[in-house]
Amino acid sequence: MEQAPQFADVIAAQQRITGRVHVTPVLRCSAISALAGAELFFKAENFQRAGAFKARGAFNAVLALPDAVARRGVVTHSSGNHGAALALAARERGIPATVVMPETAPAPKKAAVAGYGARIIACAPTLAARLAAAEAVIAETGAQMIPPFDSCMVAAGQGTAALELLDAAGPLDLMVVPVGGGGLLAGTLAVGKARGVRVFAAEPELADDAARGFQTGCLQPQVLPVATIADGLTTAMSTMTFAAMLAGVAGVVTVSESAIIDAMRLVWHRMKIVIEPSSAVAVAALLGGALPVSGKRVGVVLTGGNVDLDRLPW
Amino acid sequence: MEQAPQFADVIAAQQRITGRVHVTPVLRCSAISALAGAELFFKAENFQRAGAFKARGAFNAVLALPDAVARRGVVTHSSGNHGAALALAARERGIPATVVMPETAPAPKKAAVAGYGARIIACAPTLAARLAAAEAVIAETGAQMIPPFDSCMVAAGQGTAALELLDAAGPLDLMVVPVGGGGLLAGTLAVGKARGVRVFAAEPELADDAARGFQTGCLQPQVLPVATIADGLTTAMSTMTFAAMLAGVAGVVTVSESAIIDAMRLVWHRMKIVIEPSSAVAVAALLGGALPVSGKRVGVVLTGGNVDLDRLPW
Repeated sequence: MEQAPQFADVIAAQQRITGRVHVTPVLRCSAISALAGAELFFKAENFQRAGAFKARGAFNAVLALPDAVARRGVVTHSSGNHGAALALAARERGIPATVVMPETAPAPKKAAVAGYGARIIACAPTLAARLAAAEAVIAETGAQMIPPFDSCMVAAGQGTAALELLDAAGPLDLMVVPVGGGGLLAGTLAVGKARGVRVFAAEPELADDAARGFQTGCLQPQVLPVATIADGLTTAMSTMTFAAMLAGVAGVVTVSESAIIDAMRLVWHRMKIVIEPSSAVAVAALLGGALPVSGKRVGVVLTGGNVDLDRLPW
Repeated sequence: MEQAPQFADVIAAQQRITGRVHVTPVLRCSAISALAGAELFFKAENFQRAGAFKARGAFNAVLALPDAVARRGVVTHSSGNHGAALALAARERGIPATVVMPETAPAPKKAAVAGYGARIIACAPTLAARLAAAEAVIAETGAQMIPPFDSCMVAAGQGTAALELLDAAGPLDLMVVPVGGGGLLAGTLAVGKARGVRVFAAEPELADDAARGFQTGCLQPQVLPVATIADGLTTAMSTMTFAAMLAGVAGVVTVSESAIIDAMRLVWHRMKIVIEPSSAVAVAALLGGALPVSGKRVGVVLTGGNVDLDRLPW
């Protein structure tokens, strides 16, 4: 089993990726803070390279590869943002990348991966189909698999967002991040533990494997088909990320589809920034009343901004 | 005739409004810079209070009023952003505000004005109707008119955006701003003259009074009805702003409606920020090839982000 990232791994990741990914701004919004009854600090990873925090983990993993491994290339399977981030990181290191994507991935996400010069292999929208396609690439080329979340290096990279958030915002009482596969959550938990900040996870009701797992103590499958608008959060957790969550998370909150859409629209309207539905899941959790945020200083990671502008949900 | 703002007026405005309006960030975007063939620096006034640069001029004018004048309140006529900005500035000074708005103003702009506690008076969408309604308010209450652009104090306030842009970006070769009534242009020209930066204006082909005026040397009326999507740029210039433009502008570029929409969408997609069509006019001018920007360091003011998210133009 892959090891969960520790704080030292996040620090090492930060040193490795400095100058290769953006130090994104931490934004405030008095209107949304007032609605939440808390002081909110938004880490704007929608401004990150390739449009999402995934660049952090991808760059960390790609830059850490020994030359002899790296030159055979990298491969991954991803609903989109990790694939684009890996394609970008591989291009900058000058190595080939192959991205296995479900046929159902949004057109802008496919275009982003192709735009960074990666080879795309389409597959059925199931984890099994993705894994099989990726393994075929590995057998053919010897490429290194860089998984979207089940990787200590990837999760440690994602944790650098929380580290920067704390550095910019000052002391926080708690942090809220969306959970899909759990890489961002695992990295954030490592930071929260070291810095004494409670970490909550938020996920769509329609993709609630983390919440069910947290309640039962057993890793849960996703109930298929996953129909949430938050297309970045449709994967189930891995054994590693699940164990990290159980060991450290303060709670897991689920939110409805309408709450996600309302939160997404609110952020666009009030903050004048473009965030994708997966980002809005954490905002919806903050506004839903189920988190103990009243009067607290709360950090939230806005995970990405890759949206199909022709298919807005309102 | 109102005096055009000088650089000293802009400096005084900056001192007056410091702490009352946001110092908005200056953003970069390598993709859009590459398309323009220039180094672009975007002053993100869509993040300004009330969602547009208009807060600068409104706060400057309201804060400069003597107490005896201020207590009778302020009034204006505005297609939206200036009205909201004035309502906010008046509320913070604790004085009443009345905003005359055309019946055709977008719903979110009306809601913003009402949300800041101002009284709204609806009128026909003509300058004559707006002026008549505003004069009736003045006759009734003794309120001070704060015009949307034909005011030295207002235009000087708008110029602070250019001042901050230069402070953050360092030396620039030129600056590009959209022109409607010309308040932002007049303030920016004062800064450009003092700092040795050429200033270009951009406007919609469908509201091209500034371009026709620049070509002919005579103040031109707007050709009615004005059908541009850039609803913040539909007013004609005043004698003051026109004179300032003739004295200082390096050129006026017009852009098509489709170029405005494409530029707006490009900024949303690539920069992950919400800008309104009037802001996109300056970006469209940069991408259109008619400005001498090749290889230059170019500042552009993204003027606002108040968009009806239910009525996107694509």
